[in-house]
Amino acid sequence: MKINELKGILENNKLDFALFYNPDSTKISPNMFYFSGYNGLGALVVPKKQRPFLIAPKMELERAKQSGIKAYSMGKKRFFESISSIIKKNKIKSKKIAIDNNNFTLSHYKYLKKEFKTKTKDISLDCLKLRQIKTNTEIQLITKSCNYASKILQKAINNFKDFNTESEVAAFLEHEAKKYGLDIAFSPVVASGSNGSMPHYEPRNIKLKKGFCVIDFGVKHKGYCSDITRTVYLGKISKKEKEIYNFLLNVQENTINKIKINDKCGKIYENCIKNMKNYSKYFIHGLGHGVGVEIHELPNISLNSRDKIMENMAFTIEPGIYMPKRFGIRIEDTVLMKKKVNVLTNVTKDLLIA
Amino acid sequence: MKINELKGILENNKLDFALFYNPDSTKISPNMFYFSGYNGLGALVVPKKQRPFLIAPKMELERAKQSGIKAYSMGKKRFFESISSIIKKNKIKSKKIAIDNNNFTLSHYKYLKKEFKTKTKDISLDCLKLRQIKTNTEIQLITKSCNYASKILQKAINNFKDFNTESEVAAFLEHEAKKYGLDIAFSPVVASGSNGSMPHYEPRNIKLKKGFCVIDFGVKHKGYCSDITRTVYLGKISKKEKEIYNFLLNVQENTINKIKINDKCGKIYENCIKNMKNYSKYFIHGLGHGVGVEIHELPNISLNSRDKIMENMAFTIEPGIYMPKRFGIRIEDTVLMKKKVNVLTNVTKDLLIA
Repeated sequence: MKINELKGILENNKLDFALFYNPDSTKISPNMFYFSGYNGLGALVVPKKQRPFLIAPKMELERAKQSGIKAYSMGKKRFFESISSIIKKNKIKSKKIAIDNNNFTLSHYKYLKKEFKTKTKDISLDCLKLRQIKTNTEIQLITKSCNYASKILQKAINNFKDFNTESEVAAFLEHEAKKYGLDIAFSPVVASGSNGSMPHYEPRNIKLKKGFCVIDFGVKHKGYCSDITRTVYLGKISKKEKEIYNFLLNVQENTINKIKINDKCGKIYENCIKNMKNYSKYFIHGLGHGVGVEIHELPNISLNSRDKIMENMAFTIEPGIYMPKRFGIRIEDTVLMKKKVNVLTNVTKDLLIA
Repeated sequence: MKINELKGILENNKLDFALFYNPDSTKISPNMFYFSGYNGLGALVVPKKQRPFLIAPKMELERAKQSGIKAYSMGKKRFFESISSIIKKNKIKSKKIAIDNNNFTLSHYKYLKKEFKTKTKDISLDCLKLRQIKTNTEIQLITKSCNYASKILQKAINNFKDFNTESEVAAFLEHEAKKYGLDIAFSPVVASGSNGSMPHYEPRNIKLKKGFCVIDFGVKHKGYCSDITRTVYLGKISKKEKEIYNFLLNVQENTINKIKINDKCGKIYENCIKNMKNYSKYFIHGLGHGVGVEIHELPNISLNSRDKIMENMAFTIEPGIYMPKRFGIRIEDTVLMKKKVNVLTNVTKDLLIA
């Protein structure tokens, strides 16, 4: 995506090429994937003038070539040594190199400096800003990712009575995702009863506790994330509990409905906090985040954020109430900003009582 | 694990404290987890003299405290600002700080330098070396992780005829893991037919192709990884194909059986290459890697590796034969070095023909 925009950044900053790399087959290098479609081991070089190319170890070469971008084998050289030799062979200048400081470790920087005794410039923020405005293709992929996640989560909620343990719920979600050939966007949260007060709780092989149960789930469709949370209730609910749930639901829907182009994200957060009244002290995380090739991208919808809502941004709105050692409730949708805001995740928000 | 050994490293290098951090809730910071047992967002500080402590955002505080280590809330400060203020409050010197360059990005380093105008020393290799020798507790956890992975993979192989698509096999593996409350150690590889020639192929929602099918799978039990690969065959196998499989199996078992304490890893790789004769040019990756809190650790069993086999190391042995666009075969076990080598993964290696 947006290779020309990246080349524009290189041009404006007098940078000879951009270098992104992925040293770990179990992770993704977001910008390498974004600009090339390849998520395996290796490096992506985007020269200011010439065509971009990949450099991959022998074992990944076949996969790298499937991206449609020219791919070189690393051969038996060390990683940065082989990058350097291919760059020289292609007669690409290397006076000043663009790198992504957010995804560049100190160790690799040392190797880079050994091979290229030149200046580097951090373009991490430029890349994040490019990525926060989605192209039509990306919007299609994110929409489809949200459709899959919604379908799967709705199915889990409909069958909620069949589950005995937290792990079983998580297993069901992952199994359904995998059956469609989808990866999960993150390890699902299934937090029952008092475990719900930990927003990032990891489901365990324990019997589902009575009370609220927070389920946070998302998939990756062709590399694009979705993110959705619903809270269900297990057992006999009190009037007070029902009130709190509906109160939070109201806050979430009002927040979504009021979002307009040019809104400041810090302001959206502040307004939400105001609406949460006495419960605001039990809301202990950000209100939302952009969603794309990474599960957490710009915009950042939290205290003091200076990001602004723009057309074609995809992001979450996810207020929650967490009472330590008692319970947790969170309601989250992924939304897309067009002229108006569109909710992409479609799972009922009527409280399911199982 | 090994906090005292870490303090010894600090002492020897005149370092005031070690700082590890995890900025991403979807990933793990291996050393922070290794030394504290906590894998959420936040930072771990290990002072040379005082007790270690965690610093976590409000939303993660309850989870951080469950590690048994003292945990401070970040409050509303920025990440490194809050670390710095807690360190000052605890009257810990900060003349020279130990960090893990392999897990420290250039962006975070800039923030660190802003708060601590002091020197840092990279202790990534010291940590990897500590971690490559497993404690008894770790051996128990890795053994159990291998048991789970073996049980699940054996079940998938026994039921292989029931699967229609690559995705279904992967879904089954992940579902079984999750039912036990286990995470997967990496996204499983299920590569049928010609897809098998890509060692890191990602399973798709396509009908299983006839021929060899490579299945690479591992779980995490309490944070500790296992890693195992088996290759099954779908359809009518030729005599030649059977021969190649048995040839590779022979190489794998011989390689394992010959490993002794003090062996050089580069030499183990070379010997394996020799044994692979004409097929060696189709073996396009390393022979093995250490396994622990990360799926790829030391020792590194590949060309030119200077690592040595020592008692209580856990690592994989995984030769493969990859014929581009035709097929792939890989056989992998996780083994443990005691006086003799012990295979921890127990799944039949007799070729299953489904």
